[in-house]
Amino acid sequence: MRIIETIHEARQALVEREGSIGLVPTMGYLHAGHVSLIEQARKDCDRVVVSVFVNPLQFGPSEDLDRYPRDLERDAHLAEEAGADILFTPSVTEMYPRSTQVSLAVKGLSERLCGASRPGHFDGVATVVAKLFQIIQPSHAYFGQKDAQQLAIIQCMVEDLNFPIEIVPCPTLREPDGLAMSSRNVYLSVEERNQATILNNALSKVTTEVEKGNITQANEVVDLVKGMIQTAPLGEIEYVEALTYPYLQPITHLKDQRVIIALAVHFGQTRLIDNVIWTGKEDASCLER
Amino acid sequence: MRIIETIHEARQALVEREGSIGLVPTMGYLHAGHVSLIEQARKDCDRVVVSVFVNPLQFGPSEDLDRYPRDLERDAHLAEEAGADILFTPSVTEMYPRSTQVSLAVKGLSERLCGASRPGHFDGVATVVAKLFQIIQPSHAYFGQKDAQQLAIIQCMVEDLNFPIEIVPCPTLREPDGLAMSSRNVYLSVEERNQATILNNALSKVTTEVEKGNITQANEVVDLVKGMIQTAPLGEIEYVEALTYPYLQPITHLKDQRVIIALAVHFGQTRLIDNVIWTGKEDASCLER
Repeated sequence: MRIIETIHEARQALVEREGSIGLVPTMGYLHAGHVSLIEQARKDCDRVVVSVFVNPLQFGPSEDLDRYPRDLERDAHLAEEAGADILFTPSVTEMYPRSTQVSLAVKGLSERLCGASRPGHFDGVATVVAKLFQIIQPSHAYFGQKDAQQLAIIQCMVEDLNFPIEIVPCPTLREPDGLAMSSRNVYLSVEERNQATILNNALSKVTTEVEKGNITQANEVVDLVKGMIQTAPLGEIEYVEALTYPYLQPITHLKDQRVIIALAVHFGQTRLIDNVIWTGKEDASCLER
Repeated sequence: MRIIETIHEARQALVEREGSIGLVPTMGYLHAGHVSLIEQARKDCDRVVVSVFVNPLQFGPSEDLDRYPRDLERDAHLAEEAGADILFTPSVTEMYPRSTQVSLAVKGLSERLCGASRPGHFDGVATVVAKLFQIIQPSHAYFGQKDAQQLAIIQCMVEDLNFPIEIVPCPTLREPDGLAMSSRNVYLSVEERNQATILNNALSKVTTEVEKGNITQANEVVDLVKGMIQTAPLGEIEYVEALTYPYLQPITHLKDQRVIIALAVHFGQTRLIDNVIWTGKEDASCLER
């Protein structure tokens, strides 16, 4: 595996446009979730590029940019093990040599869920992903379903701007006790970590209730999930919402549509997100768990 | 020359990525200025694509979208004569099948000159050009220097978003009496058309005065140009500005920098723009006339 730090060198390494190129964009501090994306790319594509870049554009002024966990040596090891051919790790000045004049703007989809409390976040995500798409020119790009709103926005971006790239969604990976894997989990104290299992427990419980037909309304879903999370004293709910997916429109009934139940909950300084997406058909079978 | 109306068909026609591809994006109603861009692309590139698309996203609600002149048959003839291989003429629903969620946003550069009176105009230009870049994936793209602010923004977009595309600026073409060629010139009445020659006359005069060293300050340039335009009773000045180029920053002295003198003047319902760009060195020799 080659480690490449400059845009010029990345382009040189990929100048032969034969075959498929899979890109896995990450902010590093890789976990098994990222590894599963890289492994999927390895199965699908002739060449696999993993990018590691903590993108300042998607962090708000009071967010955790400076303390975001980093471990490039470990990332390189994990990426290589999972089958990456190139690890692209540009510096901030390599990606943003001057104040950006032209960037991407996301409306509609960016206004709800995480976008409501993180203004500009998804503009920053879309901008850096568009840049990576131009630098690497992948045929396929891999994104985890844990960041479901990000995934929806990237899918819209590819449609709206005609990027000739197939977006491959990959299921959320979980710890043995069900907590969704996240680089931010390392922030959690032992007690916060224990209580954070309530998030997946609540999503699992509500899924069962919907599958049994005991719950049919969006507000019942939200109430059940909120009620369970409130039993964890260290958890502070930012949002729990039931919306259509991927367009994130409000709903009343769950029936006959693809529905996301998404949540963001703070445990101390750490903000965790999780979600489940249902097909929303009469049988309410799970699409992704 | 093939005429192609769908994105899918355009991609199919260009699926072989061998050699260079030159793109000339236009809104149609081609004139000799466009033809010169196509001819330049023909000289530089293995394949030449001309797009004709009147982009609703870059027109304001009170602007001339509906009455913008169109003549596809004539455009096809001129494009083929000039050496185009493909004329790409998508419909509005082909380019915008649904309400756009993700688009491009231009700051800084878009706030002055034409951007001040046309809010959102350059966002619309950048968005459609980015889409065309993704659909055609040209190695080179050709833009006229008459739309100098647009050219500066496209050059910034390519840098900021890492498009692997060389932007080729082409000089403004003029009618025998000096009026800059524009599809909108057909709107002018005979009297307006006669008086509109003052725009180039003023830019030529001020260039001579600067070259002679009689003028060294930005405000003197602006005053001289405004004074001359005011002698044309049908002309109504929107702006005359002297700024750095391409970053469009205010200046006081002309010395030692690249300077644009740009103007927008209304003749009746018709809004005309023109400009001259100087190297701004001591000798103030013209960069583009």
